[in-house]
Amino acid sequence: MEQAREWQLVADWMGVLSDLDGAAAVLEWDRETDMPEGGAAARGTQLSTLAALRHRHLLDPALDEPLSAIAESSDPWQAASARIALRDRARASRVPEDLVRALAEASSRGVATWSRARPADDVATWVEAITPLIALTRQQATALADGGDPYDALLDLYEPGTTYAMVAPLFDALAARVRPLVETLDGAGGPSLPAGPWDDAAQMSVARSLAADIGFDLSAGVVGRTAHPVTMSLGPGDTRLSTRVDSADPLSCIMALLHEGGHAMYDQGLPPEHRRTLAGDAPSLGAHESQSRFWENHVGRTLAFWERLGPELATAFPGVADGLGADDYRRALNRVRTQAVRVESDEVTYDLHIILRTRLERRLITGDLAPADLPAAFGDGMRELLGIVPDRPANGAMQDIHWSAGIIGYFPTYTLGNLYAAALADAAADRVGPIDDVLREEGPAPLLAFLREGIHSRGSLVEAPELMRDATGGDISVEPFIAHLERTYSPTSSVS
Amino acid sequence: MEQAREWQLVADWMGVLSDLDGAAAVLEWDRETDMPEGGAAARGTQLSTLAALRHRHLLDPALDEPLSAIAESSDPWQAASARIALRDRARASRVPEDLVRALAEASSRGVATWSRARPADDVATWVEAITPLIALTRQQATALADGGDPYDALLDLYEPGTTYAMVAPLFDALAARVRPLVETLDGAGGPSLPAGPWDDAAQMSVARSLAADIGFDLSAGVVGRTAHPVTMSLGPGDTRLSTRVDSADPLSCIMALLHEGGHAMYDQGLPPEHRRTLAGDAPSLGAHESQSRFWENHVGRTLAFWERLGPELATAFPGVADGLGADDYRRALNRVRTQAVRVESDEVTYDLHIILRTRLERRLITGDLAPADLPAAFGDGMRELLGIVPDRPANGAMQDIHWSAGIIGYFPTYTLGNLYAAALADAAADRVGPIDDVLREEGPAPLLAFLREGIHSRGSLVEAPELMRDATGGDISVEPFIAHLERTYSPTSSVS
Repeated sequence: MEQAREWQLVADWMGVLSDLDGAAAVLEWDRETDMPEGGAAARGTQLSTLAALRHRHLLDPALDEPLSAIAESSDPWQAASARIALRDRARASRVPEDLVRALAEASSRGVATWSRARPADDVATWVEAITPLIALTRQQATALADGGDPYDALLDLYEPGTTYAMVAPLFDALAARVRPLVETLDGAGGPSLPAGPWDDAAQMSVARSLAADIGFDLSAGVVGRTAHPVTMSLGPGDTRLSTRVDSADPLSCIMALLHEGGHAMYDQGLPPEHRRTLAGDAPSLGAHESQSRFWENHVGRTLAFWERLGPELATAFPGVADGLGADDYRRALNRVRTQAVRVESDEVTYDLHIILRTRLERRLITGDLAPADLPAAFGDGMRELLGIVPDRPANGAMQDIHWSAGIIGYFPTYTLGNLYAAALADAAADRVGPIDDVLREEGPAPLLAFLREGIHSRGSLVEAPELMRDATGGDISVEPFIAHLERTYSPTSSVS
Repeated sequence: MEQAREWQLVADWMGVLSDLDGAAAVLEWDRETDMPEGGAAARGTQLSTLAALRHRHLLDPALDEPLSAIAESSDPWQAASARIALRDRARASRVPEDLVRALAEASSRGVATWSRARPADDVATWVEAITPLIALTRQQATALADGGDPYDALLDLYEPGTTYAMVAPLFDALAARVRPLVETLDGAGGPSLPAGPWDDAAQMSVARSLAADIGFDLSAGVVGRTAHPVTMSLGPGDTRLSTRVDSADPLSCIMALLHEGGHAMYDQGLPPEHRRTLAGDAPSLGAHESQSRFWENHVGRTLAFWERLGPELATAFPGVADGLGADDYRRALNRVRTQAVRVESDEVTYDLHIILRTRLERRLITGDLAPADLPAAFGDGMRELLGIVPDRPANGAMQDIHWSAGIIGYFPTYTLGNLYAAALADAAADRVGPIDDVLREEGPAPLLAFLREGIHSRGSLVEAPELMRDATGGDISVEPFIAHLERTYSPTSSVS
């Protein structure tokens, strides 16, 4: 009886956190979609004010006792929420306020400098801006680690329950398996699609229809259009995703839709009765990325997917898509070309870019690598892992925004997502049948049902490694992913 | 020196209020424009949470001393902000929390019941729902009045500085002058425009271009489309307005654009350096309505306006607008037809609907009229003021949402806005020239400049009656409005 009262206090408190997060997401979504230029400054202060109110609410000392009591609850959902709450409160209280402010300022300066220095290939200015930012991030990592490993403390912000000691051997094995594959496959794939133009409005119409087809509920969400595709949770029952439109290339819109659709359907599949609690969200970024990559790479790169979508494209783009068959789309999509820029990379080489960044950022935090030496180390690593040299500094160490914003510990979650997605695809094939066959015979619904049951409905009841172990029947390994690459990109398997 | 520190405390505190108001407006704008059906419940709790945080922040006791000090400031902007802050804090502290909650619940129930009962003409159910709500509103009024007049305390929420004793004689004089006019003018105006269809997208394109033409800054705002036109301030530099589109009638879109454009340009013209303070907003709803009505009725109903817009309409609606001249638009617009429903009424009869409601709601609050007797009293008043009887209860006392939501004291602000607008139009004519001539020779810019200087730039430095006195050179009277009606609707002045 006493615990019921305490749970009520905790639930109300978490409800306010959920409302503030949802409100901030509405402000961010609007900023990406509709906000006029003149609103940028005010939107920034509104978001800061909401963040400050959230911080104060998160640390409300009145919750100390109720949370300690609920952490011992026999109800697994309540216990998980309390565990996450205590973790988030510990994190928030470990970093002193003046360090939080200094980080925010250095991060803004870092991003602003990066935006100017990158197009100018001005490495020196960039290094000068990130040097103090990385020093502050190391301080933050040390404070968060509370005696533990500083890099792990950063990784834990994005991928709770996963440590560098778990990631490093996995990534080493992945690099060793992928590098020979890249040598074999570089240059694979078919010719590009006709340059169009592929009508913008028709692309958005195809995107909305495809979202509904894979299972995104449009009565509880919106498909929008932005320069950079994104998914946001604006609250229970309101999930927004956006795709991009390039009138010379419809694949860009469709693949971004599948990727964001995977994130968005995860959001829609979280257990409704727990949505206003901390356990009612995804446990990690890697877990989230497993869903986006599942739909993008394990559904969207199959022949069956294009057999299904092809007739719709023929109708939507008369005169442009005439005569294109499923295999034309699939082969144009599944091209392998080693290149310096991560975000333009194909699926085969992509993780080598992540592995390089993970190794380097680990060394930045341990102190083994000085920011001044980062550009050279980046070039060396690219030569070693990918066998190429960036054509210009802008396409080397400076290419991503992450480090310039003080975001370290985030990169590994991309590759974890890829590995998780491949393992889930194998498990789905075991459980409901080969994905091509399922798509041809029943459409995407059985695949979504599999993910709903094994992943979405479990929220953050357990951390990502355990969640994936339960859903796939084993510890994470590189094998399913390597097998997927071999199946998808090997020239002999061009028709599945 | 001491006061500088206190002002900083007050300014920071008001900045947070401004951020919370802006954030809530973003949530509301999104709700009206993009939100999927599934998001409604969460959006409601998010808005409640923001309102609760705002309430707590508003009453922060740490501001007692700084506000008292700043109220005595020699800086008129600082003193005005402190005066408004103290007023808002007094209001918020006078109504007990359990009454606030009871009102919110009764209001939700009232609106829900109204939505069902009105289409069914179910007066009995409606009266049953509003009876407790009106009792609670009387309690609220008494608490707010703190010994003063309860109805004035409600009116003061929307129209600070204006009392029923000021409004009643003005409205009596207005009724006496308008009723004979209605008898003369009923039936005036030209034939309707062709039924079209007037292309929806072309209407929105005309609306955006018209917004820019009258002076709305699209780099600091958005023109959207909603079922019910609205203007919202999402923060300094971000003003959103929406219009409606009826494919059978382009006038509806254009007039709503002018109306909301007037509100929106007021928002954009508020003094930027005071936007995060309480004095940096409009002083009352009547003042705001004066701006919407200025553009809608004193610009939009002139021949010169349609001479200016006509060519654009001919281009935007080929085949539909062919052969229509400025006077065809103007005469189709300026029709007078007495009818029971306020929101469908013409400009001549509109204020009689408001006068009726003001008299009745005053009696509801004094206790002179029981809610059960409201439907009959409404019918009697309509017969007396407008000479007609509603065809059905849905078009009688139940027609508006206001009373069903517990909103009393709001109606008079519509008519005050109309009177203020007419006085401002006369003052503009004196200062910059007859409006038709100005529009023909220089376009709308000199009119906006006049409003910017006399109204917008002054924020809430003074209350609305003083603001209007300063801008028009005299106390408010019905004469400018009556003269405007005679000029605009008299058949002999059909060409100006």
